[in-house]
Amino acid sequence: MPKVTIAQNILAVNDTVAQEIQQMLTARGIRTINIMSSPGSGKTTLLERTLQRLKGRIGIGVIEGDIETSADAERIEATGAETVQINTRGACHLEAHMIRDALAEMDLSRIDLLVIENIGNLVCPSSWNLGEDLRVVLASTTEGDDKPAKYPQMFAAAQVMVINKLDLLPYVDYDLEKAKRQALAINPHLRIFELSCRSGVGLDTWCDWLLTFVRHEI
Amino acid sequence: MPKVTIAQNILAVNDTVAQEIQQMLTARGIRTINIMSSPGSGKTTLLERTLQRLKGRIGIGVIEGDIETSADAERIEATGAETVQINTRGACHLEAHMIRDALAEMDLSRIDLLVIENIGNLVCPSSWNLGEDLRVVLASTTEGDDKPAKYPQMFAAAQVMVINKLDLLPYVDYDLEKAKRQALAINPHLRIFELSCRSGVGLDTWCDWLLTFVRHEI
Repeated sequence: MPKVTIAQNILAVNDTVAQEIQQMLTARGIRTINIMSSPGSGKTTLLERTLQRLKGRIGIGVIEGDIETSADAERIEATGAETVQINTRGACHLEAHMIRDALAEMDLSRIDLLVIENIGNLVCPSSWNLGEDLRVVLASTTEGDDKPAKYPQMFAAAQVMVINKLDLLPYVDYDLEKAKRQALAINPHLRIFELSCRSGVGLDTWCDWLLTFVRHEI
Repeated sequence: MPKVTIAQNILAVNDTVAQEIQQMLTARGIRTINIMSSPGSGKTTLLERTLQRLKGRIGIGVIEGDIETSADAERIEATGAETVQINTRGACHLEAHMIRDALAEMDLSRIDLLVIENIGNLVCPSSWNLGEDLRVVLASTTEGDDKPAKYPQMFAAAQVMVINKLDLLPYVDYDLEKAKRQALAINPHLRIFELSCRSGVGLDTWCDWLLTFVRHEI
């Protein structure tokens, strides 16, 4: 089965590069998060709102992963954060060597927190380490409360789950408690935040927590 | 580059199996659609509503693709349609050999329309032919109107785009005309339906069109 062997080699090479990235970033005192979700869960909007709130308090660098377009990077750059766009031209996830190349374009001396926004895909990105300290999976109330059970690898691989679009709860059939119960059954250590990027509810709690993470208090 | 060669071989083998499936189904007078979308766009709900409307008019068989759980197949089976569940246990898309195995479990004599619900993933499934006559990409108003531009391969590979969750338009920033314009710029032949599985608007038009497709009138 040459396919399996090669796939394992590719993942092993990726892990080695990811480890080098993590060591380099840790040595510089930079903490790194990898945000993953389905397309349209609100990764970029969460990042915009977070950057607006944390501006001037810590230095944030952003690596934007997209298959095509630089629309997201332009949105993020507008907040003043140092931003690099990766376009994978078809690939369904980011890999560590892409992060290494992106980091070479950044002034790391100004960065306390590096945020990597992965490709919108609830499956493939969970298999690829990028050198991050923390994996965040974003879920939204419009996607249905069954997503943790149906995409368990992603929720098992994450340390944090953010449930977004709380403002749409009155208009959709989403059982918040069921979604949380399913996610915790897969990953009992998952830390869960509930918020709405539109109404702003929950954003302060999320940002406060992120600051303690950057300050190594957790 | 052994990786590329092997990937091409895998896709070529898949295409051969897909061709055999299409020939076999066509010989039996069965028309086949492959429904693809992000997680939570409403593939299963669209299928439920469609089956309820077409019940007794044509015979429909459903192959449900999910990474884990048989929850969707149970929902579909409740409508009375012949249903087979495929669990990929981690794989991010369906492949033709999985469809061949699923078809072996079905009584094809009762089926006019075979619907394959792919894994929720707006990237990978578009590369894998399953022997279908028609590819349908489902988009929802809560995902953002930028998805065609950001995931162009999927919209280029489809013949039909269904925009779901019209009922949520008042509560989200989704520019319907922009989404359609972007999709048509990628694929000018795309046929577009707009509907809401929740309110029911647009479902009759979609179902009527599906009937003409099954009757080979289009």
